[in-house]
Amino acid sequence: MTHAVVDRLRAALGDRVDTAPATLEDARADRSGHSSSGAPLAVVHAASVEDVQATLRIAHATGTPVVARGAGTGLAGAANAGPGEIVLSTMNLRRVLEIRPDDLLAVVEPGVLNGELDAILAPHGLWWPPDPASRDISTVGGNIATGAGGLLCAKYGVVRDAVLGVDLVLADGRLLHLGHRSVKGVTGLDLTSLVIGSEGRLGIIVGATLKLRRIVPGTPCTIVATFPDVRSAAGGSAAVTASGAQPAIMELMDARSLAAVHALLELDPPAEGLAQLTIRTDGPLAAAEAAQIAEVLRTAGGAVTVTDDAAEGERLLRIRRSMHAAMLTLGTTLIEDVSVPRSALPDMFDEIARIEREFGVPIPTVAHAGDGNLHPNFVTDEPEIPDVIWRAAEELFRAAIRLGGTLTGEHGIGVLKSRWLAEELGEDQWDLQQRIVRAFDPTGILNPGKVFEEGPAFETGPEGSDA
Amino acid sequence: MTHAVVDRLRAALGDRVDTAPATLEDARADRSGHSSSGAPLAVVHAASVEDVQATLRIAHATGTPVVARGAGTGLAGAANAGPGEIVLSTMNLRRVLEIRPDDLLAVVEPGVLNGELDAILAPHGLWWPPDPASRDISTVGGNIATGAGGLLCAKYGVVRDAVLGVDLVLADGRLLHLGHRSVKGVTGLDLTSLVIGSEGRLGIIVGATLKLRRIVPGTPCTIVATFPDVRSAAGGSAAVTASGAQPAIMELMDARSLAAVHALLELDPPAEGLAQLTIRTDGPLAAAEAAQIAEVLRTAGGAVTVTDDAAEGERLLRIRRSMHAAMLTLGTTLIEDVSVPRSALPDMFDEIARIEREFGVPIPTVAHAGDGNLHPNFVTDEPEIPDVIWRAAEELFRAAIRLGGTLTGEHGIGVLKSRWLAEELGEDQWDLQQRIVRAFDPTGILNPGKVFEEGPAFETGPEGSDA
Repeated sequence: MTHAVVDRLRAALGDRVDTAPATLEDARADRSGHSSSGAPLAVVHAASVEDVQATLRIAHATGTPVVARGAGTGLAGAANAGPGEIVLSTMNLRRVLEIRPDDLLAVVEPGVLNGELDAILAPHGLWWPPDPASRDISTVGGNIATGAGGLLCAKYGVVRDAVLGVDLVLADGRLLHLGHRSVKGVTGLDLTSLVIGSEGRLGIIVGATLKLRRIVPGTPCTIVATFPDVRSAAGGSAAVTASGAQPAIMELMDARSLAAVHALLELDPPAEGLAQLTIRTDGPLAAAEAAQIAEVLRTAGGAVTVTDDAAEGERLLRIRRSMHAAMLTLGTTLIEDVSVPRSALPDMFDEIARIEREFGVPIPTVAHAGDGNLHPNFVTDEPEIPDVIWRAAEELFRAAIRLGGTLTGEHGIGVLKSRWLAEELGEDQWDLQQRIVRAFDPTGILNPGKVFEEGPAFETGPEGSDA
Repeated sequence: MTHAVVDRLRAALGDRVDTAPATLEDARADRSGHSSSGAPLAVVHAASVEDVQATLRIAHATGTPVVARGAGTGLAGAANAGPGEIVLSTMNLRRVLEIRPDDLLAVVEPGVLNGELDAILAPHGLWWPPDPASRDISTVGGNIATGAGGLLCAKYGVVRDAVLGVDLVLADGRLLHLGHRSVKGVTGLDLTSLVIGSEGRLGIIVGATLKLRRIVPGTPCTIVATFPDVRSAAGGSAAVTASGAQPAIMELMDARSLAAVHALLELDPPAEGLAQLTIRTDGPLAAAEAAQIAEVLRTAGGAVTVTDDAAEGERLLRIRRSMHAAMLTLGTTLIEDVSVPRSALPDMFDEIARIEREFGVPIPTVAHAGDGNLHPNFVTDEPEIPDVIWRAAEELFRAAIRLGGTLTGEHGIGVLKSRWLAEELGEDQWDLQQRIVRAFDPTGILNPGKVFEEGPAFETGPEGSDA
């Protein structure tokens, strides 16, 4: 059965069907630290939309599950493929098809990297705001599939705010054009928004019409403020938000994060307990806004420095950007991703301190403080995440939900958080969401088992994942 | 059968069940000029979420269709109720439950009017950006149900950009809490976005968590530019967008609109053919931006005046705001609502001129030129819209779609445009959207016949609208 599917794929797609052991092994894991239970059947390197459609038609006819995959930089395991599954890679669909400065839009294929897109847009005076930390290596299609965020979201929005339309191949190979090219449009249900963040469960994203912005004029300013402890740093960021200022970036590092990065970058170790805010203002009023923010931070008890020098600004931001690398030097890392209302940030740091004490695990944490999205990191010497860390993470999720927040701000559910999904959504909504998945994919061949752990709702239908 | 349903409603809801003939008659029509074929069974004036749930449980048990209704200011007939239907009015659910300046959010009931919400928010230094022309008389729930737009959308976004979460009562009376209070959140499918613009087909909106903005500082400036013809006015607006300026408002009136409003307001008649742009800049740089825009408009051939006087600015904007009243003085009006990419605005005006000639009907048109959304008005002396106007409107829709646009930018599909929906969406997407509706409402009792003309897809299920 398995070989028959690969044979059919090869007959239709030739050498775009890759069964090299190293390729299959790579497709088992993303950057979450989690791997599937074994190698998938094959990786199809689609070179056209028609290739995607041909693959889906074969998968649909044979009941074979399909896992869509971009650059594999996800942090929730949503693109990890396992035994019996076809991987559909859209990495070779990498063209920018159209750039319209007058309409502030671009039409792109899904495999374009964020970083390379912005390099192509820059000569037109344009950029696409989504900026996940992985922006140099992650794809636009992956950004859309996960509903990615990043550092600039409080001011410039998330992926959902930056996509006008999506081209989607359905489970049976049909191609849909969702959304429009106009700023406004309310024709029928908003399926474009529904596909954003759907993590491969509704269809394969094969094209996107992106909403662009003009490059922001002016000289950005960078502000660094240190505080004696993380709660006062969180209070400082809340004071900035309350002042009405709207920085482009406002990042918070707790003492453990800051110490780990200083060690990695061979900087002098920070004082015990010291936490840091790194803030950037931009636009024509960047300097005035930076001065206003500096004053707010000083009043909140921060030690503040401000610079409008580009190189110095980059050097300061690099400390925040080195967080992930610093964590990797410490061991196996589980990067968490809870999000809370901005006012709850100080309370969430108290909860993290409590969980550290109760479970006896250190939790170095950075936060996109401007929008209330925290990345607590769990680090272990063991190759697999031990049970105590999962129990601590569960406590973290419940704390975030109690504070009016959510399980995941920007990484998605994937396989790592599916067991808590029903707890946040409630059983009724969880069930409804699965019925919507089945409206798109009646036989359940698209990324089965991801986001929604298969429950009774799926038992009566054909279930590709068991093939 | 009919009386039995009303009896059950009365037993559960007492005098919130209204069968006064005048109330029933009112519920047949919105502001579109279209009425249903007859009076509905009853209007339930819900006083609580529980009232909504109780109504839905009775409707579900008896297979009786339910039409959700706010202030009845819609322009597509989506809230018009007919024979055999229960009207569920959310006008008495009118409380602002929570205002959080620190989190820039408010929690409201659906019957709050846009205008009254902003009056409540203003002392907190906050506002909610959606500003349909009906803002003084339309409800937040209606704004969400239609995915409303307005004048400020190019700079401040549409309703979809201004809603974090929605509380929704399903067809069987269950209550779901969709979305979150945090800026970021990608937990499961984005059902909040799916409900926005769903025109009563997915559930009854009984609450919303709104994303607020701080009141914009500075003195707004107002710019008026007149052009010898509408195409050069459209070129002027395109030049403003291309210059990188981002006005808060940029409205275009063609010669017929301008003449009608001047007549209504007893102003001197404008020169033959004269078209007008009315532009507002805001924020701390409003004056500099206004000067830059004025220069662009002069270069584009406009005769330009600029003011930073608030009263004079309001007087100038009133000309644009009087458009709908001016149309009503001319006869029965069909207000159309196509939207195109901004660069296509001049071509769309050419298409309108062609359709005027070919069908022999005048089409006074205003446009939200900053975002490419046009409101061509068809005016007739007859009480019903004659066939020639529908044929001209159909030609208008097809022209907008050919230019990369859409049937409706902000008014919705309702009953007036459902016959063209499949043409824009394609049969596959049209069919998929109906399957999603059935995932929410398996027996089809919510606003049946609206948006989607019932096709074969519904023939096999119980169909409340025939009860």
